[in-house]
Amino acid sequence: MKLYQSNTSPNSRRVRIYLAEKGISMPIVPVDLAAREQFSDAYAAINPRRVVPTLVLDDGTAIGEVSAILRYLEEVHPEPPLLGTTAKNKAQIAMWERRAELEGFAAAMEAVRNSVPALRNRAIAGPHDYQQIPALVERSQKRVRNFYADLNARLADVSFVAGNEFSVADITAIVTVDFATKAASLPIADEHTGLKRWYDAVSARPSMGA
Amino acid sequence: MKLYQSNTSPNSRRVRIYLAEKGISMPIVPVDLAAREQFSDAYAAINPRRVVPTLVLDDGTAIGEVSAILRYLEEVHPEPPLLGTTAKNKAQIAMWERRAELEGFAAAMEAVRNSVPALRNRAIAGPHDYQQIPALVERSQKRVRNFYADLNARLADVSFVAGNEFSVADITAIVTVDFATKAASLPIADEHTGLKRWYDAVSARPSMGA
Repeated sequence: MKLYQSNTSPNSRRVRIYLAEKGISMPIVPVDLAAREQFSDAYAAINPRRVVPTLVLDDGTAIGEVSAILRYLEEVHPEPPLLGTTAKNKAQIAMWERRAELEGFAAAMEAVRNSVPALRNRAIAGPHDYQQIPALVERSQKRVRNFYADLNARLADVSFVAGNEFSVADITAIVTVDFATKAASLPIADEHTGLKRWYDAVSARPSMGA
Repeated sequence: MKLYQSNTSPNSRRVRIYLAEKGISMPIVPVDLAAREQFSDAYAAINPRRVVPTLVLDDGTAIGEVSAILRYLEEVHPEPPLLGTTAKNKAQIAMWERRAELEGFAAAMEAVRNSVPALRNRAIAGPHDYQQIPALVERSQKRVRNFYADLNARLADVSFVAGNEFSVADITAIVTVDFATKAASLPIADEHTGLKRWYDAVSARPSMGA
């Protein structure tokens, strides 16, 4: 098993944090996004969407998409559980992880991809070129702020995004906050004390340096 | 267990088809989207994102998001498997389902939500209002056409979206095609013979009337 990834890719970071939480180590193959290595024929043969990360199994099977990669890793390395243990718990974590991705991660990514000059024709990751739409930037920023406010309200009641246990929902949410802060100048607001408490607690985990 | 859903919601249809494929029956609670019932206090208490569908378990736990609902149902009704059986197979189905949703379903939804007059302030489903961005319509339509072309190429090699077995990836893809055809005037093009062959075969399954 080996992981194709980039240190500058937030989606890659989701997998790196997961691996660190699990204590799984595997060969890492860097993909140089700045040099457009993801568009090389060699990488396109591994991942036709030309995105990182990709997990390549020992039989050569390539698994793309973070949710699919984590699903595989959880099956072969169930401990400690990060995708839940019971049917109900698995569904709740899936729900909250999905919401964090849809309302937070995807919105932050959209804000950045539609504004950075170097991504003028690359407003959406993947095999096809799409022009930026400037009007999307403001709407995406608003979505990230709404995500923060909603998550802040939730974290008044529970310790972690999906409830009382750390899970992949926290990984997606904290990668979103770090990425939105750094790449879209959208830090946590001072009044979001629940979100800030959660952020500080989760940031202190050793896995977060991954 | 009961399912809150709407007959006009493509996300609800994904769950209805899944239930029909599994032979699972449960009480169905209609949510009248035209009457904005999803914004009622009663429904918001069940699903804070104010979207359908929601699966409510016997203990009152509410599971939103199609992927989370199907994850729960697959755990409690594993046969016939629609999310895979081995670790590798589960990951491959998760990957292809995800791609169908990201590149097909989400794009078709974006094209419709940013153009329908009645959704002027509802360009994104969820608890918050967002204005439509007209420039998104054309880009989204282009994304759906690229999804069709990419899926057509894939279906030259395999019988179903995720490989040789019918899975949730086919459900997401066919709901996308039907929705894009009807609501965004984006039918399968004549030259996409692989996609058409797959569409005709999958459409003939009894579950598709759900």
